[in-house]
Amino acid sequence: MICFSCRIPSESGTCKKCYEEVNMRKDALRHNIEELKSKVNFLTLFLPMNPAIQITSDVVLVPCSGSSIAFVHAHKFVSRSPVFKAMFENDMDEGQSVINVADVAYDALRTFVIYLYTAEVCLEDQMAFDLFILAEKYQVNHLKAYCEKFLIARVNEENAISNYTFAQQHNAKQLLDSTLTCIADNKEQFVRSEAYVNMKHINPRLVVDILEACFATELLVLP
Amino acid sequence: MICFSCRIPSESGTCKKCYEEVNMRKDALRHNIEELKSKVNFLTLFLPMNPAIQITSDVVLVPCSGSSIAFVHAHKFVSRSPVFKAMFENDMDEGQSVINVADVAYDALRTFVIYLYTAEVCLEDQMAFDLFILAEKYQVNHLKAYCEKFLIARVNEENAISNYTFAQQHNAKQLLDSTLTCIADNKEQFVRSEAYVNMKHINPRLVVDILEACFATELLVLP
Repeated sequence: MICFSCRIPSESGTCKKCYEEVNMRKDALRHNIEELKSKVNFLTLFLPMNPAIQITSDVVLVPCSGSSIAFVHAHKFVSRSPVFKAMFENDMDEGQSVINVADVAYDALRTFVIYLYTAEVCLEDQMAFDLFILAEKYQVNHLKAYCEKFLIARVNEENAISNYTFAQQHNAKQLLDSTLTCIADNKEQFVRSEAYVNMKHINPRLVVDILEACFATELLVLP
Repeated sequence: MICFSCRIPSESGTCKKCYEEVNMRKDALRHNIEELKSKVNFLTLFLPMNPAIQITSDVVLVPCSGSSIAFVHAHKFVSRSPVFKAMFENDMDEGQSVINVADVAYDALRTFVIYLYTAEVCLEDQMAFDLFILAEKYQVNHLKAYCEKFLIARVNEENAISNYTFAQQHNAKQLLDSTLTCIADNKEQFVRSEAYVNMKHINPRLVVDILEACFATELLVLP
């Protein structure tokens, strides 16, 4: 018999040395995780919604989505977006700035700004789409990747079409691949799904696009 | 023979299942580390020394250490110190504030502020002492723990006396313990060290303190 790990002939399945080494490395990794967690805690900023903090804010973001007159306070310095940064470089000496953010609801904008301060967000489906769009627009890649991962984990035959459309519109390559894989893997359920049947009538061109994309990636053989 | 890990009788030293489980958990830990690292990168702020950033700064820290007239820009919002926070809460609406920081050199103050933005610092001995003092004064526990760990790793017979004195003055309990352990472990070299011989003449009371402390912790039997 040879050791599973070092491949040196051994009486045992894994020699004790290899097993202990793996365990030691695990302890080192755990220690590393603890240190990184404490760094994240240290670097996370207080929420900008804190009233005491609002006084120092030098930028106000206004969501332009109809009737809402609520707005979100922030700090130019904390804007972790190259797009905001470029905006602020032009008017950094002007005191408090106002930025209108088109096509976004107050809740999404507020969640977006909180993410810039904390790198934390609690997603649900619609919020993941909204934040992906904001993250794309303002080039916050960390959040964009997080939302895409969240959406990919929830792809199924029922939402494949809407996810495919979204992924194409917003150039979300991994979400697109994941949708096509889901369709290919469940093609029989997919072509029987309500979403598919509806879409065939409403937008047959889109259905053709999807099926063609599946062909192209050699994932799908039509039933 | 029984498995090293699950203790179930097994033909091998560690059963394959346990070995693979440990390896899988290790991969999960590595993944966790990658995610935390990307979070730290995201949360790390640009350096406040960046000229484009200085314009948005709303606080100036002035080191009061003699002739230097250099000062350090910062943002009230980023001050990760309860002491600074309390100061700013009183004058948050006054625009740019000036804070005089006594008994500190420009380099140490600059490094301290950079740490508040990045959680990163490159330490050497004197800087570790200086930053420990600043971290203690402004209650930045994350940095204080980091400096103490750095100093502990460098305790030896030659610097044991100065480290002991520093640890006592600044209530660095772990550094104190580590100094006494070092002295106890190397008592023969210690009592022959230049630092010890000098200190016996200059400050015999301190030497008595150190030896008594070693006795008290039952670590040292005098040679």
